[in-house]
Amino acid sequence: MIEGYKSHREPVLDRRLRLGFVGGGRGLVGHWHAAGARLSNQWDIVAGAMSSDPEVAKTTGRAWSLDPDRTYGSYAEMAAGEAARADGIDAVAICTPNDTHFDIAKTFMQHGIPIILDKPMTNTIEDADKLVEQARSGDHFLTLTYPFAFHAMARQARHMVQNGDLGRIRQVNVEYLQDWAVDPPDPDIQGRAWRNIPERVGRSSAVADIGTHAYHLLKFITGLETKELRADFHVCGAPKEVEDTAYVNLRMEGGVPGLLWVTQAAPGQYCGLRIRVWGEAGGLSWDQEAPEALIHAPLHEPERHILRGQGTGLCTEAERLVHLPRGHPEALSDAWANLYSEIAIAIAAKISGQPVPPDFLAIPTPEMGAQGVRFVNACADSHEAGGVWVTL
Amino acid sequence: MIEGYKSHREPVLDRRLRLGFVGGGRGLVGHWHAAGARLSNQWDIVAGAMSSDPEVAKTTGRAWSLDPDRTYGSYAEMAAGEAARADGIDAVAICTPNDTHFDIAKTFMQHGIPIILDKPMTNTIEDADKLVEQARSGDHFLTLTYPFAFHAMARQARHMVQNGDLGRIRQVNVEYLQDWAVDPPDPDIQGRAWRNIPERVGRSSAVADIGTHAYHLLKFITGLETKELRADFHVCGAPKEVEDTAYVNLRMEGGVPGLLWVTQAAPGQYCGLRIRVWGEAGGLSWDQEAPEALIHAPLHEPERHILRGQGTGLCTEAERLVHLPRGHPEALSDAWANLYSEIAIAIAAKISGQPVPPDFLAIPTPEMGAQGVRFVNACADSHEAGGVWVTL
Amino acid sequence: MIEGYKSHREPVLDRRLRLGFVGGGRGLVGHWHAAGARLSNQWDIVAGAMSSDPEVAKTTGRAWSLDPDRTYGSYAEMAAGEAARADGIDAVAICTPNDTHFDIAKTFMQHGIPIILDKPMTNTIEDADKLVEQARSGDHFLTLTYPFAFHAMARQARHMVQNGDLGRIRQVNVEYLQDWAVDPPDPDIQGRAWRNIPERVGRSSAVADIGTHAYHLLKFITGLETKELRADFHVCGAPKEVEDTAYVNLRMEGGVPGLLWVTQAAPGQYCGLRIRVWGEAGGLSWDQEAPEALIHAPLHEPERHILRGQGTGLCTEAERLVHLPRGHPEALSDAWANLYSEIAIAIAAKISGQPVPPDFLAIPTPEMGAQGVRFVNACADSHEAGGVWVTL
Amino acid sequence: MIEGYKSHREPVLDRRLRLGFVGGGRGLVGHWHAAGARLSNQWDIVAGAMSSDPEVAKTTGRAWSLDPDRTYGSYAEMAAGEAARADGIDAVAICTPNDTHFDIAKTFMQHGIPIILDKPMTNTIEDADKLVEQARSGDHFLTLTYPFAFHAMARQARHMVQNGDLGRIRQVNVEYLQDWAVDPPDPDIQGRAWRNIPERVGRSSAVADIGTHAYHLLKFITGLETKELRADFHVCGAPKEVEDTAYVNLRMEGGVPGLLWVTQAAPGQYCGLRIRVWGEAGGLSWDQEAPEALIHAPLHEPERHILRGQGTGLCTEAERLVHLPRGHPEALSDAWANLYSEIAIAIAAKISGQPVPPDFLAIPTPEMGAQGVRFVNACADSHEAGGVWVTL
Repeated sequence: MIEGYKSHREPVLDRRLRLGFVGGGRGLVGHWHAAGARLSNQWDIVAGAMSSDPEVAKTTGRAWSLDPDRTYGSYAEMAAGEAARADGIDAVAICTPNDTHFDIAKTFMQHGIPIILDKPMTNTIEDADKLVEQARSGDHFLTLTYPFAFHAMARQARHMVQNGDLGRIRQVNVEYLQDWAVDPPDPDIQGRAWRNIPERVGRSSAVADIGTHAYHLLKFITGLETKELRADFHVCGAPKEVEDTAYVNLRMEGGVPGLLWVTQAAPGQYCGLRIRVWGEAGGLSWDQEAPEALIHAPLHEPERHILRGQGTGLCTEAERLVHLPRGHPEALSDAWANLYSEIAIAIAAKISGQPVPPDFLAIPTPEMGAQGVRFVNACADSHEAGGVWVTL
Repeated sequence: MIEGYKSHREPVLDRRLRLGFVGGGRGLVGHWHAAGARLSNQWDIVAGAMSSDPEVAKTTGRAWSLDPDRTYGSYAEMAAGEAARADGIDAVAICTPNDTHFDIAKTFMQHGIPIILDKPMTNTIEDADKLVEQARSGDHFLTLTYPFAFHAMARQARHMVQNGDLGRIRQVNVEYLQDWAVDPPDPDIQGRAWRNIPERVGRSSAVADIGTHAYHLLKFITGLETKELRADFHVCGAPKEVEDTAYVNLRMEGGVPGLLWVTQAAPGQYCGLRIRVWGEAGGLSWDQEAPEALIHAPLHEPERHILRGQGTGLCTEAERLVHLPRGHPEALSDAWANLYSEIAIAIAAKISGQPVPPDFLAIPTPEMGAQGVRFVNACADSHEAGGVWVTL
Repeated sequence: MIEGYKSHREPVLDRRLRLGFVGGGRGLVGHWHAAGARLSNQWDIVAGAMSSDPEVAKTTGRAWSLDPDRTYGSYAEMAAGEAARADGIDAVAICTPNDTHFDIAKTFMQHGIPIILDKPMTNTIEDADKLVEQARSGDHFLTLTYPFAFHAMARQARHMVQNGDLGRIRQVNVEYLQDWAVDPPDPDIQGRAWRNIPERVGRSSAVADIGTHAYHLLKFITGLETKELRADFHVCGAPKEVEDTAYVNLRMEGGVPGLLWVTQAAPGQYCGLRIRVWGEAGGLSWDQEAPEALIHAPLHEPERHILRGQGTGLCTEAERLVHLPRGHPEALSDAWANLYSEIAIAIAAKISGQPVPPDFLAIPTPEMGAQGVRFVNACADSHEAGGVWVTL
Repeated sequence: MIEGYKSHREPVLDRRLRLGFVGGGRGLVGHWHAAGARLSNQWDIVAGAMSSDPEVAKTTGRAWSLDPDRTYGSYAEMAAGEAARADGIDAVAICTPNDTHFDIAKTFMQHGIPIILDKPMTNTIEDADKLVEQARSGDHFLTLTYPFAFHAMARQARHMVQNGDLGRIRQVNVEYLQDWAVDPPDPDIQGRAWRNIPERVGRSSAVADIGTHAYHLLKFITGLETKELRADFHVCGAPKEVEDTAYVNLRMEGGVPGLLWVTQAAPGQYCGLRIRVWGEAGGLSWDQEAPEALIHAPLHEPERHILRGQGTGLCTEAERLVHLPRGHPEALSDAWANLYSEIAIAIAAKISGQPVPPDFLAIPTPEMGAQGVRFVNACADSHEAGGVWVTL
């Protein structure tokens, strides 16, 4: 049985897995995927179709020290080429704009290559459902990258909710605040210009980009499904055709009310993803900009600042994600490494035909990817209908 | 011309003003009013009808060192008695449950005694409008106690918005989080039991109690009127007939969107009133639990933590409210003292027939009190209609 | 038996006590004493010799709304005048420069008037010892104003140490950082110019001014006596003849090492008094600039942020000092009010011939005042001898 | 000319460099070196003598996915073996206890292999001087790993001091607080047991372990040499033969006073390295547990919280170290990656015969390593002589 990793990050198989990239050669998204893969010590990055421009793809492959034979001019060539090699990639990371996810993922699935897809899964529910169907019918591996759930303290938060430390959940709040959309779009900032083009982002920009993270984290920590929602979209930054701000009221399982609020037009906010959960017996608060501490307020008792770190009473699931001792801060690269480690464990299990312990991993299923797309579209439905309640 | 006070808190007239209390003998509200009056050094507390129970009223009067002759068994006696004295009170502080405000205020107005009324003004819009009408037609002094606007840094925030430091406002957020309603109502905690009785609180409990503070502060700092709102009420704490939680979406002047959120059922939150305002050129954040710092994020520049304190570049309006140097923390008692000082300045001006500098004071007008009542009722209207947009 | 006060600040006798001031008419020190006395609701300020300049004394008396008959041109007149009145003051607050304390205190003692003396007690050990001897031999009331010990959370810290929550104390650290001495002395800032004049401050400026606070708080919370110390004085701000910075190594009872560090020349530090205490079983940290929280780190457990507030598990001694609920911040004025309340309790007991519960009060004894003077002089001794260890 | 790296971490040569490890197979130190090397994307870890126990060395090599041919039973074999290969390692990371550094480093230098040595360089000044002499006479590359200087905000702090933003420096303070030495030594915690054995750690444990970091960072940021010091060693945690706590007074260049304080026996402190620097025109504060913010207090102006992040006015040297945008936190792994990147740039320049821009890198010279050893021994000298001032 594949058991996972220890304090030292050591490959779960007797070799590192082989990873290829589609897109990501420039811009931040590819950087994060690559940093996570490298720091995890589970992966060698060996192939890529890093750009839709063949010249850029070649330059980038060189910059990444890829073998020129494995620097491809298109994702289709790459899928075919890698599938044909004995030492072909064990997975592909797809880091391209949302509207291209479906075709690329479908192509790699057709070649039997496991898929690591940046979120959101697709722009439309139809495409998302087709990917789920194909993945399930062919037993293909496909996951989405929601890295914030891979912080040790987010895992600890989930455990404490499951453990009943908060009692019955009564109210939730998640906000994700940034400020880059205050300025007019800058075509020179890779990975951002397309976010203002409706054809590329689909019916939503901010909700699709960061709202999906907030939605995923809320479900991940509380375990509660959102049943209905009501959304208003706004442009609070530079004029644009897509929303940069959204207010979403939630009705969750058991009638628990909540708020989900995202903006990319709040000067002084950079990546302010903060979740607060309150139950009958206490509250929890976690902020990804200060990810080392989980603040637990047991009702009528002093607030406890639970710090990441080994041997300090964290739950087993959280301890597995801890690699530096308390006070030696881990941050976003470490979370990405945890994400890429859990993906490696799952794929290694598949390669070696061994089972993974149940409930061991937190890597999203294809269905969870599609659920994120449903969330985005439900927000757009509600907004377009004037802010009415819609069922999710 | 009455010019106000200096670093040392010195009476604006050659004597301290005389203050009487209706209610407030037990419980927190009276404590705050009294603390503010005493610390301001503008007032002597000389008379009271501190309870609707004559025995309690007498005991309390003794405990407050009042002259037994000026410890009254009812507010009506007190209004009449004080109006008849040459050294009668210069103002009355009314610290009773909401549903009694109208009759008490009307009675003191009839005797020509200036009125300091705890918020909200009344339960119904009709009563509020009548009080405004009576105050205006008789040129009576009537104000409401919204103390948070009397922190130096809230004043500084208002100045910075007016000064254009944030550019055009694009989005606002105010939250006010407490946790006392998690527990079942405790009849032994004075000043709380009535908050769960619909007949006493009117159509709303949490919005009327703390939502009005949030609404007032938002208007105070941003200067923006709320044009429309949409509210959902919830019970997230112990079962009760009135809401302890409300989510309110705002459409403000100029189409600025905003959120106002209050709850009294969030374990670990005690008096978490926090306001965040973002404009084209920067953001501001202020938290009443850490009132010494105003956080200013000019777009693309480092965050500035502006601390209360003299001679440090605060605006004149804020400097007037500063009595201790930076690092020697002022807090809620100091804000109440500032409130009672500004009230004293206004009443002293009236007594001495002198003008007060225009825009000098921040004490709410009767109309602002009535506007708070309109806000509460609009929230209730929206909620009762299923969360529709209503005009304020 | 005098039992002290409740949530509401109510006079312990059936009248407020009568307080007079020597000095303090301008500048900060008098402001604090007056604010504490007023907010405590235990005192009426009725007499004063507020300045050594008779004209200023008169103006200030008027500004404070004092009866002109009780506005004195000198402290000697005041002592005689008040002693002769049936309604004479119950205590005098002495808020003058250090070098004048001895003569003024002696004079008021000769007239049998209880004394509230700003720290440090005197400049010289000889004078301090004489005051102690006179106070004790005549059973005169004399105390010193160290307000930081009157924060509820400092009281809670003391309780937790006494209660063994930290186990045996192993190391202590106290720092007090300000920045006003970076600038050249400004003769216009009352209460500061004399602090740079050796004749007035004695052998030390910074240690006498803020080091005594740090020393007192350290002893107050830990209960440990300092046995030996080693001090270096420095000028880190504008050139001056007295130190603005001192590093003091401590050897406390039981061989516990410690550091005490004060500076008035650290830009960006305003009143940064912070104490940290570590024992075998945990640590405590408290910062007077954020006085509402006491941070307790039990060994190997999450840090607990214990917040001031009633009904939350604070010790009885701390609860007595709490007047606003959690989240409604109390700060320095509230601590001064607690100080003036405890002084009132002690004097009221003396007036009424009733006992005060043992260990009830934290108001410094005359001996503790003299000990502060010994500390200042020991630091100067060590420094002048080149930083050698000296016995305290 | 070798120019360094960009936002994306790309190898500076057309291949990654080859790294070998001596020690580090278990315990934290090796983990950090390996994490930094991997995340930097400049290195492949290809060889190792990971333990002095050959069986452990073999197991660890397998766990690290090393080629069995390059998993050596001793460092001497490794040095000889790698030197003989055409694809031999480009550098060796030495992660063994202090007392072994000298022999291992000398051996690798004899084989011409560049050396990355964990601090402190050696236990004795003699050994350190010999290593410096050998490195300089043979033009060998040798550096020490002080990772905290490789945080972008530590680099920004150095720049601001150099740029005169603080004016003339007047006072410095650095503290490094941990708590692991409260408990009795646990032989099962790798990398710690030897720290309590005098023969292995030399004359100092805490100063050698964390004091050297504090000393290096102080020199790095302020540029000031320590001229004289005075140290007291204490045991504040579990009984042991070496100090776990030290207080060090500093006299720096130009008469600037300072304090350096380290302890490993402060419950609730985990890796609390904090530096504060004050000059005539302002102060700076940086805390490695919250490494994203540099707090700048310009005299008489609001405190500025300068956050790491691109395009936000950081100096060029700091921007080079930034790989994630503001709000997407970087932490210790990222600093280690920066360290391993700068080492790679230097070694790549040597390999390719190209110059590195002057003042480009912050990797310590051999002389700086020896200076750290001098600091440790001067502290021991002072302590052993009763806490006298000694020249450094």
